[in-house]
Amino acid sequence: MTAPVDPVRLLPGRGVEILDQTLLPLVERRVLLSGIDSVCEAIRELRVRGAPLLGLVGAAGMAIAADTTTANDADLAHAARLLDATRPTATDLGRAVRDALAQALSAGPSALLRREVLWRNAERLLALRRAEDEAIGQFGAELLPRGASVLTHCNTGALATAGIGTALGVVSIAHRQGRIERCYATETRPLLQGARLTTWELTRLGIPATLLPDTAAAALIASGLVDAVITGADRIAANGDTANKVGTYGLAAVAARHAVPFYIAAPTSTFDPGCPSGAEIPIEFRSPAEVGGFAGTRWSPDGIEAYNPAFDVTPASCITAIVTEHGVLRPPFAPAIAGLPALR
Amino acid sequence: MTAPVDPVRLLPGRGVEILDQTLLPLVERRVLLSGIDSVCEAIRELRVRGAPLLGLVGAAGMAIAADTTTANDADLAHAARLLDATRPTATDLGRAVRDALAQALSAGPSALLRREVLWRNAERLLALRRAEDEAIGQFGAELLPRGASVLTHCNTGALATAGIGTALGVVSIAHRQGRIERCYATETRPLLQGARLTTWELTRLGIPATLLPDTAAAALIASGLVDAVITGADRIAANGDTANKVGTYGLAAVAARHAVPFYIAAPTSTFDPGCPSGAEIPIEFRSPAEVGGFAGTRWSPDGIEAYNPAFDVTPASCITAIVTEHGVLRPPFAPAIAGLPALR
Repeated sequence: MTAPVDPVRLLPGRGVEILDQTLLPLVERRVLLSGIDSVCEAIRELRVRGAPLLGLVGAAGMAIAADTTTANDADLAHAARLLDATRPTATDLGRAVRDALAQALSAGPSALLRREVLWRNAERLLALRRAEDEAIGQFGAELLPRGASVLTHCNTGALATAGIGTALGVVSIAHRQGRIERCYATETRPLLQGARLTTWELTRLGIPATLLPDTAAAALIASGLVDAVITGADRIAANGDTANKVGTYGLAAVAARHAVPFYIAAPTSTFDPGCPSGAEIPIEFRSPAEVGGFAGTRWSPDGIEAYNPAFDVTPASCITAIVTEHGVLRPPFAPAIAGLPALR
Repeated sequence: MTAPVDPVRLLPGRGVEILDQTLLPLVERRVLLSGIDSVCEAIRELRVRGAPLLGLVGAAGMAIAADTTTANDADLAHAARLLDATRPTATDLGRAVRDALAQALSAGPSALLRREVLWRNAERLLALRRAEDEAIGQFGAELLPRGASVLTHCNTGALATAGIGTALGVVSIAHRQGRIERCYATETRPLLQGARLTTWELTRLGIPATLLPDTAAAALIASGLVDAVITGADRIAANGDTANKVGTYGLAAVAARHAVPFYIAAPTSTFDPGCPSGAEIPIEFRSPAEVGGFAGTRWSPDGIEAYNPAFDVTPASCITAIVTEHGVLRPPFAPAIAGLPALR
């Protein structure tokens, strides 16, 4: 299956070309990031976003750092620290950056070889992401009945992974199999990834889509119109507690009340076995300016304080199953997660 | 206590002057409505909104209809039908319009007398609303501990009632009593009444206010930062099931999960004893154009479908107490509601 869009292109020796996601769907602008500072800025400003894609961009950022410095140990360690500090919640980014650093250091002191190793690593990660998404999509689709209507949150499609997506990849494959009647997408305030990106991807994929305000999700679930809720994840603790885009926990709590299955779709790189539970997941708080307006439009009085966490934590008790590239995990999650191949 | 703003002014013989709430807080524009069509348009377009205020505007609309017609039975019955059809969910509007019609008809055939009766009725309703709000505020404030942080949804202040408000009236009186440390307000997509109106009122009242995206409410409640959730109501069924601004049910469900008290504040005119449960409350669905954008700004692809109910229903089982002008109702709600003075 082809993805509807290519959110990053790796250009060894030149940098990484991204689709600026802050401008979608109104403007499709591609930008070449050729230095570590522009990579960090693009991550912080959410020009690229989505936990799996951030891992890939982190790996590319390490290759760019090698290209633009002497690529000695200090240069690369410095770049790794800068990249790792951009966003605290997603596991993939820090993991991919540390992994890239370790590979470069173990390749010996040659700058040329280090650059080669780091670009190869980024290319390998891109191919891996695509394969993982396909596997997640296949396993996840089997969970959905024929004629299913599903509700999703934020954006977990091609734009979030560079493959077919995680939760949206499941929807995409299930749609090909004739299982999906409709996909409901929340707007996902404050940055509106659902309203801007998910609807755009669903339209390109030809999947019947309905947008809703975040406030209407509980009414939608209570009305019996959705057969399942499916989202991605930014970090999954050892006990199955899952950090994901703010608003996910509210959906999961209401789904649990109405016995509607709530699924997480995420590659094993999203799991953090060193994190015992959701209480230990660091949550990124973002600027109050993101609340009370959007882009150039302000609708709140000036100077109002805002509570703006980028993520929330859904307790494992609200999760029906977690779909990974290795298969579907069911409660109790702790032993299922401990047994994942990549984490052994 | 004085209200921070005067959302309607009754001008017998001329019409009703409203503050156009669609333009707040950026523009404070007052508009004179002097015909039944402009009153209906203002209600439909939410230039005036809030269940108690709609009752008042409905009563004023009947007086305006009498002023601008021969005020015979057919003229007034026609106006009542037009007003009643503008918005289906709130009880107050239909009740106030039917009550005004009955008063006019029972005043005899004189057009002059009917006009007089209808304006007096609107003025009586305005005074009643103010008194009810004060009583609701006093009863409700006693429910809050000192130093409380509360979460509210939509706008239930002076702009919604013409008094000090219902849920926001409780916050306002509790703040005067030194009980309120902070009031958290949701943005309340799609029409952003929280972000636009509640923050504006809280700022004018000098109450410390924090705005949050609707998506962040579950995280806020789970974090232990709020001591109570308090909202208004548009219609309360005989069993206590409550229709209110869409998003209320999600807040109530999460509050229940975390044993945070969830309070409704509403005058008895909001109760509909003829409606056995929430399942029988008609829910207004509004234009898809309200979703995927705001005012002139669009952020979703063109032509996307939308699920846009204006209200949802919170089951009585999620409600800790209902604060009325006659006191605080506790579960089981059915006998408590049946015993309310105004409904006997």
